Amino acid sequence: MFAEIITIGDELLIGQVVDTNSAWMAQKLNAIGIRVKQITSVSDNAAHIYKALAEAKERAEVVFITGGLGPTKDDITKSVLLDFFGGELVINEQALQNIHAIFARYNKPVLPANHQQAAVPSSCEIILNLQGTAPGMYFYQNNCHYFSMPGVPFEMIDMMENSIIPKLSQTLKLPFVLHETILTAGIGESFLADLIIEEEAQLPSHIQLAYLPKLGQVRLRLSAHGDNRAALEKEINFHKKAIAEKIADYVVSLTDINIEEVILQMLVAQNSTLATAESCTGGYIGHLLTAIPGSSRSYLGGGITYSYGLKESVLGVKSDTLSQTGAVSEETVTEMVLGALKAFNSDYAIACSGIAGPDGGTPDKPVGTVWIAVASKNKVLAKKFLFGNKRMQNIERTAVSALYMLYRLLKEN
Amino acid sequence: MFAEIITIGDELLIGQVVDTNSAWMAQKLNAIGIRVKQITSVSDNAAHIYKALAEAKERAEVVFITGGLGPTKDDITKSVLLDFFGGELVINEQALQNIHAIFARYNKPVLPANHQQAAVPSSCEIILNLQGTAPGMYFYQNNCHYFSMPGVPFEMIDMMENSIIPKLSQTLKLPFVLHETILTAGIGESFLADLIIEEEAQLPSHIQLAYLPKLGQVRLRLSAHGDNRAALEKEINFHKKAIAEKIADYVVSLTDINIEEVILQMLVAQNSTLATAESCTGGYIGHLLTAIPGSSRSYLGGGITYSYGLKESVLGVKSDTLSQTGAVSEETVTEMVLGALKAFNSDYAIACSGIAGPDGGTPDKPVGTVWIAVASKNKVLAKKFLFGNKRMQNIERTAVSALYMLYRLLKEN
Repeated sequence: MFAEIITIGDELLIGQVVDTNSAWMAQKLNAIGIRVKQITSVSDNAAHIYKALAEAKERAEVVFITGGLGPTKDDITKSVLLDFFGGELVINEQALQNIHAIFARYNKPVLPANHQQAAVPSSCEIILNLQGTAPGMYFYQNNCHYFSMPGVPFEMIDMMENSIIPKLSQTLKLPFVLHETILTAGIGESFLADLIIEEEAQLPSHIQLAYLPKLGQVRLRLSAHGDNRAALEKEINFHKKAIAEKIADYVVSLTDINIEEVILQMLVAQNSTLATAESCTGGYIGHLLTAIPGSSRSYLGGGITYSYGLKESVLGVKSDTLSQTGAVSEETVTEMVLGALKAFNSDYAIACSGIAGPDGGTPDKPVGTVWIAVASKNKVLAKKFLFGNKRMQNIERTAVSALYMLYRLLKEN
Repeated sequence: MFAEIITIGDELLIGQVVDTNSAWMAQKLNAIGIRVKQITSVSDNAAHIYKALAEAKERAEVVFITGGLGPTKDDITKSVLLDFFGGELVINEQALQNIHAIFARYNKPVLPANHQQAAVPSSCEIILNLQGTAPGMYFYQNNCHYFSMPGVPFEMIDMMENSIIPKLSQTLKLPFVLHETILTAGIGESFLADLIIEEEAQLPSHIQLAYLPKLGQVRLRLSAHGDNRAALEKEINFHKKAIAEKIADYVVSLTDINIEEVILQMLVAQNSTLATAESCTGGYIGHLLTAIPGSSRSYLGGGITYSYGLKESVLGVKSDTLSQTGAVSEETVTEMVLGALKAFNSDYAIACSGIAGPDGGTPDKPVGTVWIAVASKNKVLAKKFLFGNKRMQNIERTAVSALYMLYRLLKEN
């Protein structure tokens, strides 16, 4: 079964916004056995949208459309859909109630433009948008299913997860697709590939292996397609086990979760607490941890000790250490991690200090130089890294490396 | 002048890779007056690529193609181009020398597969790839220009910047395109549209207005096309000014930057410092601020005071306040913000505490309840918000609302 994704919006075509919706949808669709044949981004132009709709059904049986459903004048997707599928605009009561409920929540009046968002072509079924005011729409014509959704990512994601994917899984005859994931850290993609070259060669043609690298972590994803679920499960797990054994040192998880989630689970299992002392990551490690529901069970918080002053007053780093070795040094990061254990009264701590860039580098300590320390009550580990010259990447790499160091320490205990 | 972008690769259609190349190219092309009409992502399939090439020239006079030029057998773009434009494969000496030079640098032998990368259709002019082994190719047929580039972002970027854009600017007669942006916060898209309904109606057809909403912020973007740059500049700025005046209360910036960048600029201008005390955002506000280069000039850092204990020990929140009013209350968030000013010795502070969800809600304080406070040395403002039930959204909305409250406070001074 083939799908096409059409993303609508001038902002995509002038490059103001990167189309992340398509990759997200493509992943989810692949997971239920629907292959995306083409992704097409078109401008907010009626004739152009119309043509894209017509061309898509030549290639696909399911078409996913995002964007152009807002209340303003540049949003014209709905009128093109009306034109394409016929019917007339009618106020949908359920959509209208939803709009009123959202505005009531914020104590704001419903404007005519918002009221009008409840008007949909009579030729569609609406898809309720619990995250926003623009309803989604489902059309079926000439054996092709069309789903129109807002371009706002979280509105689209909510509709896909809670309405569209369940509906597709029920109504279409889809093959079984199974995915198994191995999360690794501390090793690069090509070295990983080298370690499992034999296991990869032995995969049958209906099981694919994908390497999904993301700054210091590589996810290995096995995808199996077939008609016999039980046989498929047995087969995919056989190969997963063979691969995982070959790279055991680098395996962080055998399920599809993040390293921060693995760490939080280990902390709960050990009935231990964690605190952070972040300099160059500026709160990003705390953000990764607290993005996980229930993180407050073991993550206490910590300090964003960006300035020298805060390193001293919050963590008790010695003024002499800072002036003699600098903020980016083994001595400072060690005092930071020990200070965090003490000041925040935690069982484990993470500390990092580095030069994220683009400025601030010296010949001795170029941009990308980072010191990371992790500690338990009876052990401290500090390590120096040299990343690249991109600020955001340095922040992300530092965070992942720090979490990996903590993971190794937790595993020892 | 219209362009089309064709990105080739299975990795895009299974969602393994987000297509960031297109947005980058679109921005650069817009800047020189070339409008991207459509972006099409297709799989590594010969018939599909051929069809995309044929369809593109119906819509565009310039076609940019990325991907499928690697040395492995799934890379088939070159053979499709040969088929489409005719000619025969010939070794290009310049490309071959480049390949040898690259391998020599890494002390590696040139494999047959790499030697073959220097073979290009006789119907093309090559575009030298200084960053990699696959040469780019330029074809001209039926008044349409085609540029084929590797999908590796830095190789594509180098070719675009150093070869293709200079070539296009010289050889094509291009119109001027200007963009102007107004960043707003604290108001929804539809309310904004309502305020500027007259100004929007008065826009001439060669100036478009787009609304780009993102959790609590809306970017208004005016785009103008024309032949006379000076007249266009005058015109777009006239309309920008008219719109900005109507929504003056909500305008955060008249340039295309984020609210956190606006705040950092204001702090620098006021020679003031900022600290943060984050509970429910868990470091995300610190992360947004420190993602901006040079933020250390005014952002000192702060506390991620996730637990009751850290609210007390780091910020000096009274134990009685926490036990009597709870962590999510006006009293607590006020003590947090004042504690931050004092503990971190800053001129301004932000504090927030809320229930991000999905658990932890009560009838009194449902998930999404958030208290935010901002303070200067002589003023404290606290405000309650009720967001939704999605953890990440609640975190993001809290951060943007807190930054907007601080922006208003900074503006007063």
